[in-house]
Amino acid sequence: MMCEPNCEKERIEQMIRGTLWSSGYKGVVIGVSGGVDSAVVVSLCTSALGKDHVIGLLLPSLISRTVDITDAQNLCNHLSIQYHLISIQPFLDTYKNLPGFTQDQYLLGNIMARLRMTILYYYANRENLLVCGTSNRSEYMLGYCTKFGDNAADIQPILHLYKTEVYKLASYLGIPETIIKKTPSAGLWTEQSDEDEIGLPYSDIDCALQALEKNGWNASTPAEKIILNLVKQNQHKRMPPVNMLGKY
Amino acid sequence: MMCEPNCEKERIEQMIRGTLWSSGYKGVVIGVSGGVDSAVVVSLCTSALGKDHVIGLLLPSLISRTVDITDAQNLCNHLSIQYHLISIQPFLDTYKNLPGFTQDQYLLGNIMARLRMTILYYYANRENLLVCGTSNRSEYMLGYCTKFGDNAADIQPILHLYKTEVYKLASYLGIPETIIKKTPSAGLWTEQSDEDEIGLPYSDIDCALQALEKNGWNASTPAEKIILNLVKQNQHKRMPPVNMLGKY
Repeated sequence: MMCEPNCEKERIEQMIRGTLWSSGYKGVVIGVSGGVDSAVVVSLCTSALGKDHVIGLLLPSLISRTVDITDAQNLCNHLSIQYHLISIQPFLDTYKNLPGFTQDQYLLGNIMARLRMTILYYYANRENLLVCGTSNRSEYMLGYCTKFGDNAADIQPILHLYKTEVYKLASYLGIPETIIKKTPSAGLWTEQSDEDEIGLPYSDIDCALQALEKNGWNASTPAEKIILNLVKQNQHKRMPPVNMLGKY
Repeated sequence: MMCEPNCEKERIEQMIRGTLWSSGYKGVVIGVSGGVDSAVVVSLCTSALGKDHVIGLLLPSLISRTVDITDAQNLCNHLSIQYHLISIQPFLDTYKNLPGFTQDQYLLGNIMARLRMTILYYYANRENLLVCGTSNRSEYMLGYCTKFGDNAADIQPILHLYKTEVYKLASYLGIPETIIKKTPSAGLWTEQSDEDEIGLPYSDIDCALQALEKNGWNASTPAEKIILNLVKQNQHKRMPPVNMLGKY
């Protein structure tokens, strides 16, 4: 469980500063989606490092909602950080020429997440920045992410916070209501909703995860069984590639 | 050190079969470059799983050498596996429209490696395959790879073999001389040579790595100092993103 919001903010900021300083890089680049996770991360990075050491990338596709882009822009302006708005649609369209391409929202969603990673790393490499990820503990444990996509980063400042804790921190940090109140979505297809897709609200997901962690991953309720199944099924997303190096 | 080539072949094949069977996927997709690492991996996967469970992707750019493409095609034909030849150039050209794009071989090389990953995963996701990586122990330990690019895969069958051991296994497997004899190159820019870039031949690199591993990472020769420096500098490529999850 996270500590009080003021203490948690301080602790995360120290971690961000420590990581950047020991890396020798100049700052961080963050994909800002208009959702609550990236809002919290970009806000924490800005208070930890100062506005001149944070760059936001807004990387919408044709299916992105105008309200998300506007919220992301307003947030970057409010924090006075530099940002670039770059449509990933021209990048995405190139994949339609692949042999045997099939229009499938799941396949396209994964490409989107991985493409965003390549663009974040292009800026990071060019400007000597770290890529700062915005994954939270709930989606990380469930594997509700694209492998080598949104989970790929150099630093993950809120990976230890459940989604319900991210909301608490968001309120404390003064993240705008429009961002806090919107339906959580990975935004990989139109009308995608995390909670609809997983089948449970985040309050239940986080309760189940906490119970499972406490009870040695023994599921006792139907919700815990659903969650445990996802945790197991997506374990490979939290592990290095299967290899024989450890055996020597 | 690897065991005798016949024993090593058997051991790796068992690992490939075990990983695929426990995953429930149908086969593997491998990026075949015309180099010795991917030649060994595609050969081992084919003997482990049968030719119908292996797909090769040949993903050249404009700077790729014709000889490498031809060698990769001949190898896939020799193994009787299905393969697709797809130029990544149209994908790469899209990045030239990024705000502030600068033509730099190092930046472009990293984009190439990450783009290839996105295409391998597109096929893997669509056809229910695992992405099989071709990283060896020497480049893995040195961090001579692109983070979330060529080092990103579901299974890495030769990650425990030094480059010099990969050559021994390649000879035993009957990999064509044209592949074994060519200068090792990541192929990320024209005339790139691993050994020129690292500053030492692989025989010296592997000697130094083995000495360092044996002596608790204490460097005693100039070559060991160079290698130790690279191992330390690129440690982040072998680690999960910096996070606070482990502290709770």
